[in-house]
Amino acid sequence: MSDAPLDAPVTSEFDRDTAVRPREQGVLEAQLSPGWAIGRALNGGYLLSVLGRALRESLPHPDPFAISAHYLTASVAGPAEIRTEPVRTGRTVSTVSTASAALVQRDAEGNEIERVRALATYGDLDALTGEVRTGAKPPAMPPPEHCFSASDAPSGGVPVPEMSHRLDLRLDPETCGWALGEPSGRGEIRAWLSLADGREPDPLSLLMAVDALPPTGFDLGLTGWLPTVEMSVHVRARPAPGPLRVSLTTRNLATGFLEEDGEIWDSADRLVAQSRQLARA
Amino acid sequence: MSDAPLDAPVTSEFDRDTAVRPREQGVLEAQLSPGWAIGRALNGGYLLSVLGRALRESLPHPDPFAISAHYLTASVAGPAEIRTEPVRTGRTVSTVSTASAALVQRDAEGNEIERVRALATYGDLDALTGEVRTGAKPPAMPPPEHCFSASDAPSGGVPVPEMSHRLDLRLDPETCGWALGEPSGRGEIRAWLSLADGREPDPLSLLMAVDALPPTGFDLGLTGWLPTVEMSVHVRARPAPGPLRVSLTTRNLATGFLEEDGEIWDSADRLVAQSRQLARA
Repeated sequence: MSDAPLDAPVTSEFDRDTAVRPREQGVLEAQLSPGWAIGRALNGGYLLSVLGRALRESLPHPDPFAISAHYLTASVAGPAEIRTEPVRTGRTVSTVSTASAALVQRDAEGNEIERVRALATYGDLDALTGEVRTGAKPPAMPPPEHCFSASDAPSGGVPVPEMSHRLDLRLDPETCGWALGEPSGRGEIRAWLSLADGREPDPLSLLMAVDALPPTGFDLGLTGWLPTVEMSVHVRARPAPGPLRVSLTTRNLATGFLEEDGEIWDSADRLVAQSRQLARA
Repeated sequence: MSDAPLDAPVTSEFDRDTAVRPREQGVLEAQLSPGWAIGRALNGGYLLSVLGRALRESLPHPDPFAISAHYLTASVAGPAEIRTEPVRTGRTVSTVSTASAALVQRDAEGNEIERVRALATYGDLDALTGEVRTGAKPPAMPPPEHCFSASDAPSGGVPVPEMSHRLDLRLDPETCGWALGEPSGRGEIRAWLSLADGREPDPLSLLMAVDALPPTGFDLGLTGWLPTVEMSVHVRARPAPGPLRVSLTTRNLATGFLEEDGEIWDSADRLVAQSRQLARA
C-alpha cells in the first residue's frame, strides 16, 4: 500500500493501483501494487495501464489510440517513477498528440533501473465519427456461467497468480484444456473478463485487459513465465459497460519467441481494442 | 541524390537510399530519396528501414526483433537526421538491446520538424535456437507469372506510385479487383514482392516490405492516402533469398481508422515478419 495519498478519491482496486501523482513537469510517481503480480513480477498490462494514466496526465488528449511498449526488466511492487516527454503536443488543430514515457524503479542500492519504455499517440475517442465497416465478428463463446474461473482449477495444477484475485475471469472451456494437462496445441485462449470489484471498463483498463488472460503459450504446451518483449495496443472505441470478451491467438511459435494477438469485444459486440505482443517462450 | 558519399559502396537502390552516415554520437544523416514516394509523401516502410539502419549502427546487436514507430508528420525527399538514444544497451550478457530513434527534417524556414519516433529492440537472429511449432501457413497464391504487376493496371485507374518502380510486385488476382473498380470488401491484399534491382531480402528490407503493398483499404473501397499513425514490426527470422509473399488483412474499419496486419513469408515457407499498423481512413 502507498504511504501517501495519490489521486483524488478512488473507488476501485484498478484506479487505486494505477494512480499517479505528478511531482514536477514530466515526472510522476506511482506505487506499484503487489496485487497485480504474476509470480514475482508485475503484469505487463497492469504496467501499461500505469503508463497510460501517466501519459494521459501529460498530454492534451484523453485516450490512448496507439501505445507501444518495450519491456526492459521485470517490475516489482513498490515505488516507481514515470518520466514523460512530449513528442508532438498538437499545438494547432491537431486531433492527436504523442509522447514517450519511461517507467523507472530503484534497486536495493538505490540505482535506477528502467523497466518499460513506451511511445503513445493519444486522441479523443468521443470525437471519432464515420462508419463502422468491420468484417470482424466477436468470438463464439458460451455464456460466463458455462465458463471456468480460477476457483474451478484442479488443486495441484497451474498456480493461480495474485493478479487473478483482481479479476472476474471466465475461461472458455474449449481453451482451458491446458489446466487439466491437455493443451489443444492451437494457441488460443478466450475469456469473459471483468474487474472483480465491479469497476466498469474504460480505455485505460483495456491496456491491462489485453494482457490479463493466461498466456496462449499454455495452450501450446509451454509452461512458466513468458516475458513480454514488446506490446502494442490500439484502442478503437470506448467500451460499453459490462463484461469484456478477450480473445488471444498465437500463430507462430518459433526459435524461442511467439507473438500473441489480442482482441477485446465489449458488451455491445464492438471490437474496442487490438493488441499484439512479442514474448519469449 | 546525395551530394556526399554515405555508406560503403552499395549495390542496390534500397541500400543506397537507406544509407546513413554517423555525424556524431547518436546523430546520423540520411538523404531521403524521392524514389520511395507515394504521391508527395515518402512511404512509411521505407522510413522504417532508414530508422532500422540507423538503429543498427547505434546498437550492439544487428537485427530488429521488434520495432514500433509513431508517424508524426509526412516525410519528404531530402536531407534528414536520425537521433538515437540508447535505452538498454545490454552491458552484461544481455541478448537484446533497446533504443529510441527520432527522424527529423527541416522545413523551408529551417525549423526542425520531427517525422517519426521509434522504439526498437534488437538482437541477433542467427543466435536464435529452439523448435518451430507454428500453426501459421503461407497464403495460397498463384505463382508470380499468374499475378498482376503495375504494368498490367488499366490506364486511368489508380495512379502508380513512384515507389512501385523500386519493386517487383505481383498482386494476387483475387485481391486486386479494386484496380478495376471492384473491391472485394474483404480487406485483403496479397502479393509476391522482390526488389526490382534483384537485391535479396534481409531484416532491414522486411521493415520496408511490410508497408510496400497497396493498402488493404483499397480492397474495402477506400481511395486516397491512408496515413499511418503507428506501425509495429516483429522480425522473426532472417529471410531466405528469393521472392517474398506478403499478406495484408484488415478486420476492423471503424470511425475513421483501420488496422492493417501484415505477414511476410520467405521462399522457404517461413513466416519471417509480422506487422500491424493503425492508419487513418
